[in-house]
Formats: sequence, structure tokens, C-alpha cells
Amino acid sequence: MTSEFRIPEKLEQLYEGKAKKVFRSSDPALLIVEYKDDATAFNGVKKAQILGKGAINNAITSRIFPLLEGEGVPTHFVVQLSEREQLVKAVHIIPVEIIVRNLAAGSFAKRLGLEEGTPLGIPVLEHCYKSDALGDPLVSRDAPVALGWCSEDDLETIRLLALRVNSVLLHFFLERGVKLVDFKLEFGKLANGQVILADEISPDTCRFWDAVTGEKLDKDRFRRDLGGVEEAYEDMLERVNR
Amino acid sequence: MTSEFRIPEKLEQLYEGKAKKVFRSSDPALLIVEYKDDATAFNGVKKAQILGKGAINNAITSRIFPLLEGEGVPTHFVVQLSEREQLVKAVHIIPVEIIVRNLAAGSFAKRLGLEEGTPLGIPVLEHCYKSDALGDPLVSRDAPVALGWCSEDDLETIRLLALRVNSVLLHFFLERGVKLVDFKLEFGKLANGQVILADEISPDTCRFWDAVTGEKLDKDRFRRDLGGVEEAYEDMLERVNR
Repeated sequence: MTSEFRIPEKLEQLYEGKAKKVFRSSDPALLIVEYKDDATAFNGVKKAQILGKGAINNAITSRIFPLLEGEGVPTHFVVQLSEREQLVKAVHIIPVEIIVRNLAAGSFAKRLGLEEGTPLGIPVLEHCYKSDALGDPLVSRDAPVALGWCSEDDLETIRLLALRVNSVLLHFFLERGVKLVDFKLEFGKLANGQVILADEISPDTCRFWDAVTGEKLDKDRFRRDLGGVEEAYEDMLERVNR
Repeated sequence: MTSEFRIPEKLEQLYEGKAKKVFRSSDPALLIVEYKDDATAFNGVKKAQILGKGAINNAITSRIFPLLEGEGVPTHFVVQLSEREQLVKAVHIIPVEIIVRNLAAGSFAKRLGLEEGTPLGIPVLEHCYKSDALGDPLVSRDAPVALGWCSEDDLETIRLLALRVNSVLLHFFLERGVKLVDFKLEFGKLANGQVILADEISPDTCRFWDAVTGEKLDKDRFRRDLGGVEEAYEDMLERVNR
């Protein structure tokens, strides 16, 4: 019964990442995530604070994850607890980051000598090995299975979920005047073996371009010293809440 | 009738690559490939000659390609013409290099922080964009189709042929006391649209390790200044001809 559900207590910190802290809760199946204002780029080489980023990314993720759940994408999201806190399901994170690309940009454009914005005939899925020490290197489709990071079935589930997220979000953002250029997803496994979407979806993890002006509304403003970083994040929050 | 087949005349040079020259022939459907002793590594930064390499790689490829044809892998190979020359079918080269990996080595091991020789649970296929200017960058499975380098059907054919080549060659080399660690393949399309194996299969394009001693019998001896380069190539030719 949902009426019996009580928010668990926040217990000790388990882990501090680049953009979030993770805390144990009094319910062993649930964790509390706290979003930070810290921003990093180029594998941690560039560091700063983006004022209000933690609250904005928490709010955006807390809007998008339930939307995805409604479209058949299981996620770790349970409920937003406060401006910076979220209650999520505890998962075993699969160490494969999935990048979904609709237009060439960033490392992809550079690696292939393409102009940013070059359209891609089909969405391109990339797999990276989640390792700060190695700089999250690109790997082929087969590597995660070959190296035992996940099973073939789990990888296929991840790929199908990533494509579904893309379909849903392309439409969602275009309705709000935003091109979804590319984004990064992470997945985890519940104790029962189900693969679900984890991490966040925000201007930290997506490239958003204004559909009319092409203006960048994401972390590239920070990476590339374009100015107006806070304003872009606020703009995206306002659009997501439309 | 094969009795009517005449070797066409060698005409002007069309192209000179890092390890081979390609000549037009009097038959527009056929080309003549000439294998050079030139060796390059690290995207052309390191250059030298490996004495006899051209003849050895021509001989090895001329032994292996017919073997693959017999196992259902269509190739561009027609006939060996001389010590350094081969007659091949003219194809439109698909700008995707396929790397097949059975054990971690080289760039793959480095990128993932793995010890060379780490076994892979399944063969790993990697796709690289064939571009000297960009250093043949790794791309994901979807990029060739997304960027119009080949069709989805052609890419699937390429992948299946690459896996078949791997199965045949793993066995072939193991019988000769050699572990096939990894190798690179290139494919082309005939005028009729058929996708066939092109380029070469040799110690330039494969990593070969002696199955007992682990000794390297391939271009890594040149890349890594291990000495005994010519001897390794000769050893491989002798084993292939067993």
C-alpha cells in the first residue's frame, strides 16, 4: 500500500562523485542522492561551481525520470525529497556509459573531422567503459560482454532502453524548442536482476541546442567558457517545467 | 571457361598506399596489387623497410584468401602473379576497418588498462573509420550507417564475414602453433553490390603469438623495436605453408 510508504532516514555517506553524493538510508533497498553544484570537465581537469546547478539538475531529473517511467522505461527514481535530494532504488551500477547521438558534436565530431551539427542518419549509440582513471574510454559493442561487465541480455536491454529514452526525449524537448543533440545514460541492476535507468538526465549529461537559434543550453557553456552557464541551466529548467 | 582466362596487362599506377601499390589492368574489373617492403607504424610516424616483407605478405595473403574462399568468404583475390604481385577484383573500398580481437593487446589493452593477453569471453569486433588524416579512429557499430559509409545490410554482412574469417583462421593458425590475437580486415563492394574481403591478411595486419612461447611473430616486433622482424615474417610464411 502506498499509504504505508515512509521516507527512510538519511544515514552515512557511501560515495562522493563529481556531481553527486550518495547516502545510505534506513531502507537497504533505497539510497539518497544529493546533487552538488560542483562541475568538472575534461575528465576532472577543469573544475568549478555552477551556482544552483545541483538544485536544477535534481529538479530536471525528477521531472524526466517519472515521464520515462510512464513510457515504459524503468528507472531508479522514487521521489524528490528536497531541493537537492532524491530517493532512489539501490542498484549495482553497470560500468558501461551509453552515449546516444542524434547530431554530431563534441568528441564524436572531433574524432571524425565532422562539423558540429552534422545530422546522423540513425541515432548512434556509443559504449564507454565507466572508469575515471582511464577517462571513460570508448569501447565497441562487444567489449562489455567480452570482459564480463554485463551479460549479452543486459546489454541488449540497455541498448533498447537507451533508444526508447531517445525517442521519448527527442519529442519532449522539441516541444519545448530544444534539439536533443546527444546525451549519456547509466544503468544499474536491481537485486532481482532487472536493468533500470540510473544516474541523471540534465544539462550536465545532455547537449541541448535551442531549436531556432542553435544556442547551447548545457554544460558546453562551462566546458568552452561561453558564459551564461547558470542562465542556460535555469532556462532548461523553465522549459522542462512547461 | 577458365581456359580462356588471360592475365591482363599491367597499366598505370592508380594509387600508392603505405604497404602496397595498386595498378590498373587491361581488364577494367581487375587490378594489380604490388606489395612493398615499406613498413609504417603509429599512423605513419615510424617508417622503415622490412627486407622481404612485400614478398612474404603477398605469399601469405595468396595462401589465406583462397582458403577463406573455400570456407564461404568471398574475397577480391584472383591469382598471385609474381613474388610481389597479385591480381585482384576491383572494388569500391568501404571506409570501415574491422578489427577482430580474441585476446586483449595493443590499443585495446592500453585503452582499458588490461594486461596484454587477457582473454576475451567473446570475439570483440571494433569498427574504425578508414582515414589516415584522422588516424583511423574507433567508431561505434552505428556510425558507418549513420554517416552513410555503408548500408545496414552491408555492415551486417561485413560483421558476419569478419566472424567467419576469425573462426577459420583461429583454427588454421592454432594448427600451426600460433595464437591469432587480433587482426584487421577491409572490405569492398563489387560493381554488382556484393561485399567481399579485400586488402591483405599478413603479419602486418594480424597479431600472431607463438602458442607455446608467446613470442610475437608480427609487426609488433617492428613497432616495439623487438628485433628479429624479418625472421618473424619468414617464420610465419613457413608456418602458413605447412
